[in-house]
Amino acid sequence: MQILKQMKQFMEPQSVALIGVSRYTGEGAFNILENLLSYSYHGRIYPVNPSVSEILGVKTFPTVTEIADDIDLAIIATPRPLVPRLLKECTESNIKSAVIVAQGFSDANDEESKQLQKELTDIVKDRQTRIVGPNTFGTANVFTNFSSSFVKIRMKKQPTGVICQTGVFFIGFPEMTFVGKGIDLGNACDISFADSLEYFANDSETKVVAMHIEGMQDTRNFIDTCKRISPKKAILALKTGKSEQAAKAAQSHTGSLAGKKEVWEAALKQSGVIHVADLEELIDLTRTLSMLPFMETPKIGVITITGGLGVMAIDACQNSDMKIDKLSPSTKRLLDTMSPSWLNIGNPVDIWPAMMTSQPPIKPLIDGLRVLLSDPQIGAVLFIGAAFDEKWGGGLCQLLNELAATYKDKPLACCIYGPYTDVTIKELQDAGKVVGFTTPERAIRALSRLSEYSQLRSRL
Amino acid sequence: MQILKQMKQFMEPQSVALIGVSRYTGEGAFNILENLLSYSYHGRIYPVNPSVSEILGVKTFPTVTEIADDIDLAIIATPRPLVPRLLKECTESNIKSAVIVAQGFSDANDEESKQLQKELTDIVKDRQTRIVGPNTFGTANVFTNFSSSFVKIRMKKQPTGVICQTGVFFIGFPEMTFVGKGIDLGNACDISFADSLEYFANDSETKVVAMHIEGMQDTRNFIDTCKRISPKKAILALKTGKSEQAAKAAQSHTGSLAGKKEVWEAALKQSGVIHVADLEELIDLTRTLSMLPFMETPKIGVITITGGLGVMAIDACQNSDMKIDKLSPSTKRLLDTMSPSWLNIGNPVDIWPAMMTSQPPIKPLIDGLRVLLSDPQIGAVLFIGAAFDEKWGGGLCQLLNELAATYKDKPLACCIYGPYTDVTIKELQDAGKVVGFTTPERAIRALSRLSEYSQLRSRL
Repeated sequence: MQILKQMKQFMEPQSVALIGVSRYTGEGAFNILENLLSYSYHGRIYPVNPSVSEILGVKTFPTVTEIADDIDLAIIATPRPLVPRLLKECTESNIKSAVIVAQGFSDANDEESKQLQKELTDIVKDRQTRIVGPNTFGTANVFTNFSSSFVKIRMKKQPTGVICQTGVFFIGFPEMTFVGKGIDLGNACDISFADSLEYFANDSETKVVAMHIEGMQDTRNFIDTCKRISPKKAILALKTGKSEQAAKAAQSHTGSLAGKKEVWEAALKQSGVIHVADLEELIDLTRTLSMLPFMETPKIGVITITGGLGVMAIDACQNSDMKIDKLSPSTKRLLDTMSPSWLNIGNPVDIWPAMMTSQPPIKPLIDGLRVLLSDPQIGAVLFIGAAFDEKWGGGLCQLLNELAATYKDKPLACCIYGPYTDVTIKELQDAGKVVGFTTPERAIRALSRLSEYSQLRSRL
Repeated sequence: MQILKQMKQFMEPQSVALIGVSRYTGEGAFNILENLLSYSYHGRIYPVNPSVSEILGVKTFPTVTEIADDIDLAIIATPRPLVPRLLKECTESNIKSAVIVAQGFSDANDEESKQLQKELTDIVKDRQTRIVGPNTFGTANVFTNFSSSFVKIRMKKQPTGVICQTGVFFIGFPEMTFVGKGIDLGNACDISFADSLEYFANDSETKVVAMHIEGMQDTRNFIDTCKRISPKKAILALKTGKSEQAAKAAQSHTGSLAGKKEVWEAALKQSGVIHVADLEELIDLTRTLSMLPFMETPKIGVITITGGLGVMAIDACQNSDMKIDKLSPSTKRLLDTMSPSWLNIGNPVDIWPAMMTSQPPIKPLIDGLRVLLSDPQIGAVLFIGAAFDEKWGGGLCQLLNELAATYKDKPLACCIYGPYTDVTIKELQDAGKVVGFTTPERAIRALSRLSEYSQLRSRL
C-alpha cells in the first residue's frame, strides 16, 4: 500500500478495534474506550475483550476476527506475551494498520524482549500490515476527535504535527497542548520518522512539524525526506540521547540507537530542519512558528513598560542575527510626540513615562504599538508588559489580538510578567495570533529562530 | 548614622510620609496610600498633599514639616521639578531616609536631568539623610506588610531578599512572588548595592539574596562586600547591559555605567556570587536556594514516569559537574523487586511499568521515592511526572510535600508536565518544601548550581 494511504489509516481511521480494552473504567483506569467516547470520536469503535459482552454500553467482540466491518486501525494494548498472536489475527482479518501499545520489547532488558519484537516484524514482513510501536501512545488527531492514547488528551485544534518517541507530547505542557495531530513511534520497529513526515508534508491541517528523536535506523532516508519537505513546511527537531550515558538510557527507553551528537547536528542543519537545544525551545518554537507570519527583515521593534526587561532583550540578541536597531527618524518622531520631553526615545521604546502622564494610560501604548507595527523597516514587534491583575491581563489580550488581526503580516510577540502571566499567555495561545513568553530571553530566542527560518524560506 | 540602622529605616519603617500622594484612587490610579491600607501595613501613615484635607479617610498634611511625629521614611512621588524642594523639607524635618520615586534624572536625556540629580545629592551631602532612587519602586517588606511601590504587590512571606534596578521584581513572575523583602535602587544616586547587602547579611528573615544589576559606581566596595557575605548567605546576580548597545540602554534606564561583561563575570565569580545567565535562571535559582537544603554529594537520583524526559535529564547534565550515576547495588535491588522482570532498572528509574501493574498505581512511586531519598550516596532526588488532571496534581503535591518533610535534609525537586503543571508547581511553591520546574533541563540546571554552592559552603 502506498505510504500516504497507509499513514491516513493511522492518522485518520474511520473505524478502530480496541484489542485488550479493560472492563475497568473511571479515574486511574486509563481506559481508551472511555476516552474515545468522551472525545465523541467521529469513527466506529469495536472493543475486543473475550471476558465480557459489553463495556460502557458498547458491544465487545471475543476476537478481532469476529468483527464484520472493515477496520482501519487495530490498537493492541495487552501484556506483551499476547501481542504476537493478536497481531497475527489482525493480519488474518485484513487489518493493515496496528498500534502496539505494550511495553517490554526492544525497550527491555531480557532475552525474550528482543525475540518478541522480532516476532512482530516477522509477522508483518510479507504482509501489507504496518506497525506503529511497540511501546507507544500511538496516534492522535484532534480534527476527528481521535486518539489511541490510554491517557486522556485535550482536544484542541491547532496546526501542529508531532512525531515523538514518548507519550509526554500527547499530554502536553502548560503553555501548549502539543498535539494537533501526533504520532508516537515508540520503539519504531516499522513505521518511521520518514513515513510520518510524508503524512504531515501532505496534510493541509498541519503548519509546523515538531519532532522528538531518540534515535533511528535509517537516517539516510530520514535526512533525504527532511531536505525535500523543509522548504515547504517548518520542521523542528529535538534530538535527545546526546551523551554516551543518555544514549544508553534512550536505548532502554525505546531501543533506539542514538548516534553521535555532532553527526546529528550537521545532518539536521544540512537538511533544513530547525534543531533546538532543549524541550523549552521546542515548545516555544512550535508555538511561534505555528502562530506567527514570517519576518521580512531581522530587525525588531521592542516596546516596553519597563526599561529593565528592555535591556535584557538587547542582551539576548547578542549571539544571534537579530537586531534591535535604531528607529527610523519618522518612527522616532511619532513616538517622541507621545512622551515626556526628557525621555530619550530609543529601541526598545520605554512607553511607561508616556502612560503615566496620559488618560487613559493605555492610549500611548496602543499608539506606540501601531507606530512600530506600521514601520516597514521593522520585521517583528515585541511588547514587554505586566499582567498586574486579571482585568489588566484580559485587556492586554484583547488589545494585542486586535492589533495582530489588523497587522496580520507582521509577527507580534510579547513578554509578560506579574501574577496573571500564565492566564494571559494561555488566553493569547487560545486566540492563536500573538505568542507570549515569560522572559525577554525566551521571546528573543524564538523570534531569532523565526527570522532565520523566514530568511531560508524567502531565498527559495 | 550607622548603615544597618539606616537600612532598617528603609526596610522596616515604623512611620512613613507619603509626599505627593494623589487624591485619585481605585483601578489604574496606582495610589500608594490605597495600597498600604489594603496590605494592613503595621506602621503609621502620613499622607502629604496640599490640595485636600483627607484621602481615603486618612488626614493629609500640606507639607512634611507639619507632621508632629518622627518619620522613619519619606516617599516622594511627584513630578521631578518639585523633588529638590520636597527633599530639602525632609532634611529640615529631620527625616533620615527618603525614597524618590520620580523619573527623569540621570535616567533621562536632557541637560536638566543631570543637574536635578546633582541637586539631590548636594542636598543630602552634609546631612544625615540618605536616598533610595530616584526612578524607583523603593522598598518592600512583606513581614511588616509594607511597600512603597505604587503598583500593588502580593504579600507572601518568603526568605528571599531582592536588590534590583527595576520594579519588575516587586511585581513578580508566574512561578515566583519575588519579594520577601526588596529594594529597588533605581538610579542609585546614594544607597548602593553594598549598603543593601549589609542589611540582608544581617537579616534573619532572608535566606537568599537575588540581585539584578545594570551597573554601579563603586564596584570595589561592592565586590569586597560580596566576598565577606557570600560564605554566609547565598547571593545570586543577574548582570544586564552586556553588549555595548545594551549598556547604552541601561544608561538611559537607570543612568548606570554597565561596565565590561568579562570584568563583571570574573569579579562576581571571585567574590562567591552565583552569577546567572538570564532572568529565568535567576527565578529558578532563587526558588531552589530558598527552599531546598544543601546537597551533600553531586550525584542525583532521578525517578520518572516517562523514560523520554529521563533521557533529557541526562543530556542536561552534560556540561555540569552533576552526575546521574549508577545506583548502588542495594538501592537497585530494592527497586528491582517493584518492577516487571523485563525492566532494566537504572538511574533515571523508570517507575511507570511498576505503576501499571500495581494497585494503587501510586504505591511503587512512593516506595521508589523513599528508596532514593534514603540512599546516602544520593545527594538530591528529582522526580519527573505528569499532572494529568487537577486531582492527580493535588495528590502529587501532597505526596511530595510529605516526603520532603520526612527527608528534610535531602533536596527534592520535580519536573511536572501536563495540563495542570502551573497549578501543581504553584501549590508546591506555596508549601515551600519542594521546587518544581516545567522541563528537565531547568531542573538539572538549578540542582547543578545548588550542588556547586553546597560544595563551596561545605569547604568553609
